Amino acid sequence: MIPVINRPHFNKGTIMAIGVLATITVQEGKNEEFERIFLELTEQVRANESGNVFYALHRSKSDPQVYKVMEQYVGPAALAEHGQSDYFRQANEKLAGLVAAAPDIELLDAV
Amino acid sequence: MIPVINRPHFNKGTIMAIGVLATITVQEGKNEEFERIFLELTEQVRANESGNVFYALHRSKSDPQVYKVMEQYVGPAALAEHGQSDYFRQANEKLAGLVAAAPDIELLDAV
Repeated sequence: MIPVINRPHFNKGTIMAIGVLATITVQEGKNEEFERIFLELTEQVRANESGNVFYALHRSKSDPQVYKVMEQYVGPAALAEHGQSDYFRQANEKLAGLVAAAPDIELLDAV
Repeated sequence: MIPVINRPHFNKGTIMAIGVLATITVQEGKNEEFERIFLELTEQVRANESGNVFYALHRSKSDPQVYKVMEQYVGPAALAEHGQSDYFRQANEKLAGLVAAAPDIELLDAV
């Protein structure tokens, strides 16, 4: 049983929350290293970003090289904070050598 | 500012958490009704399902008829509980008349 410590739940406000769906294809043989680095990044995001609502790595069931990250931020400033953090930049440098192509990043409006 | 009341964060365990990415295309002119019913469903999910980690409706920026729902459950039993609930079935009956096609549902392994 996985204990659920926190769950996202927020009131709607005047600032639109932002969803991010990142699709990342990883080189064969690099999955373990990719997951380790990405989960370290996840811990940093959850620990440091009060404006991050969720940040959750998933692996495709049909293609084990494909990962999808579900993310949500309370607004544009929180998304910018995420992208400008030192740990995000440092993780991205490490991950760049493990991916098979540039990630596909889709921004969405939270409803 | 949108207050973030809860955030997902859970320890890894032996049971694999499950992600769901649902893509739903809504008929033109039905967006408002779709969103109202879906947000009512979202409130029920958050209030009743301890095994739901997050459940978050988003709208595409490129096609206003397209919605993407990011969902995560702590395991297969929690996902089954979601699908079998009365409020989910009742919402689906209402939503069926508003969508343009059958939703695309992708199951993912949480990492």
